[in-house]
Amino acid sequence: MQRVPLQQIHHEFNRVLRKNGLVAEDAELCARIFAESTRDGVHSHGLNRFPSFVESFKSDYVDIGASPAKMAAFGSLEQWDGRMGIGLLNASFCMDRALALARQNGLGCVALKNTNHWMRAGTYGLQAADAGCIGICWTNTTRLMPPWGSAERRLGNNPLVVAVPREKGHILLDMAMSQFANGRLQIYRDRGEELPLEGGYDREGQPTTDAGAILDSQRPLPIGYWKGSGLAFVLDLIATLLSGGQATHDISRRRDEARVSQVFIAMDVHSVAGEQVLRQSVDAIVEDLHQAIPLDESSPVSYPGERMLKIRRESLEFGVLVDPRCWQQVLDL
Amino acid sequence: MQRVPLQQIHHEFNRVLRKNGLVAEDAELCARIFAESTRDGVHSHGLNRFPSFVESFKSDYVDIGASPAKMAAFGSLEQWDGRMGIGLLNASFCMDRALALARQNGLGCVALKNTNHWMRAGTYGLQAADAGCIGICWTNTTRLMPPWGSAERRLGNNPLVVAVPREKGHILLDMAMSQFANGRLQIYRDRGEELPLEGGYDREGQPTTDAGAILDSQRPLPIGYWKGSGLAFVLDLIATLLSGGQATHDISRRRDEARVSQVFIAMDVHSVAGEQVLRQSVDAIVEDLHQAIPLDESSPVSYPGERMLKIRRESLEFGVLVDPRCWQQVLDL
Repeated sequence: MQRVPLQQIHHEFNRVLRKNGLVAEDAELCARIFAESTRDGVHSHGLNRFPSFVESFKSDYVDIGASPAKMAAFGSLEQWDGRMGIGLLNASFCMDRALALARQNGLGCVALKNTNHWMRAGTYGLQAADAGCIGICWTNTTRLMPPWGSAERRLGNNPLVVAVPREKGHILLDMAMSQFANGRLQIYRDRGEELPLEGGYDREGQPTTDAGAILDSQRPLPIGYWKGSGLAFVLDLIATLLSGGQATHDISRRRDEARVSQVFIAMDVHSVAGEQVLRQSVDAIVEDLHQAIPLDESSPVSYPGERMLKIRRESLEFGVLVDPRCWQQVLDL
Repeated sequence: MQRVPLQQIHHEFNRVLRKNGLVAEDAELCARIFAESTRDGVHSHGLNRFPSFVESFKSDYVDIGASPAKMAAFGSLEQWDGRMGIGLLNASFCMDRALALARQNGLGCVALKNTNHWMRAGTYGLQAADAGCIGICWTNTTRLMPPWGSAERRLGNNPLVVAVPREKGHILLDMAMSQFANGRLQIYRDRGEELPLEGGYDREGQPTTDAGAILDSQRPLPIGYWKGSGLAFVLDLIATLLSGGQATHDISRRRDEARVSQVFIAMDVHSVAGEQVLRQSVDAIVEDLHQAIPLDESSPVSYPGERMLKIRRESLEFGVLVDPRCWQQVLDL
């Protein structure tokens, strides 16, 4: 691993995106999102994913020139068509719309259809939190997980994000409905490491900590067994109904994951509460969590997103930790 | 077990509530909610809980005469004070407000502070679905679960409900953030049965299927380990910030669970989509799930709430299955 200054990574991403046809504004936004994901240690949807992101511009399911179109609107609720544009641009645009609605009405919800992979889900939660709002968003995906009671992949892992603004660092829950994402399973398999907990079933239907066996059986475990299976199901359902877009079973008709459906909710909590009260409430809740006696002294109990903030600080201080091969690949693009 | 007609149960609940001081309208609403929970097989928050519900009227934390008061409002977002009134009445009132806001603005969110236990969480999701809206609601609770990385109870199990309207039976996800609720652990312990899956840790910190050992250690497992721990944390945080009410750590200062905080969200999906399109989308998603090959032929894959609908049909056809001792206890009240 090597450390590279954030600006340099951002700059290289921008250069490659411009070279590959994005207009200046779009290239800058995508470069920033990819650079920030890398800065925060989310390599699977940062640097390591960047080459295949650029590659996708040549596919028949990404239209780099498309911009989203409003399909329907009623008060705080809007429906947009992503028109197969770049997922990051569509998602960022729709969270901005939800934030604008929230500023007008206390809350806003934008549902988006026909969009592409938004990369790191947490990006759009942080976008809301940076604007001082609570942000909730999720996406459906292609079939990645069997429903509870079956070995057959039918459900998406449908990442869900909840972000709450906080001066000293936002709270950010960013979780897929499978216990371990596919990317994480691949990392464990490639390193020959065992999962810390059972993450799915092998071909014989036995629970296992062998990541390779889970990738082979295609049976990752939904979080909380029937509960995560149920939550993945309703997230797909709501994203499809609100957006009028494709459900997981529609998306899965083709090999590439394309034309997914997403929901962006923003809540302007400042519209009903004072800044000081909010700050005190958040701080008291965080402090109470931090007071929990850890099982392992070297690993204090942390709120969602707290460890990521530590990686971010290190990236800003010492440079961003990157895989030299992946970094060289970007330099060569 | 014995079967009793739904009307008779409803009638007895109403009689007891009137006798214990509720005005006619409040008694009728509470009786209906308790009867419907019992009808749907949710005994832990139906018949079996009814005597202690009535008992709570004498406590210092329930004011049976209180009605909720609006504290703040901005567009689609409202903040109400439950004034320590009956939890069922407050919750039902607030979901109604959220539905009214959704009809005006596409979506509505009502946050409620200083309320009491709402009994079956799913009640208020079904209320939204009956009104043709998507309903999302949750409550915080007293400390019931350790955060990930600690053995010390700090988090609530904060039940979350997502309901989607469907002509042939609503979809209803109703789940606490612990893998098994306390009530369920008690049932397994009392029957001397093992849990079907590890549901927590024993006093030695070992994962276990022994419900008694989990009740003893007070270490139920959050769904999906760190993920359910994180979700419970953010649900408490949002409920507290939006309502201006008590967080889990505040609630836990006294022995009885009182003055909890809740959130009610309604989405009027009909405001942006036609009835026929919605029906077809829901039916296609449900049908795709039903086509999953079950691991056990006798146990087809079902959507959240589907098994409950079967119990409901049996209750309506043959009478509601009740524990004779619990039923007699209500008759004697």
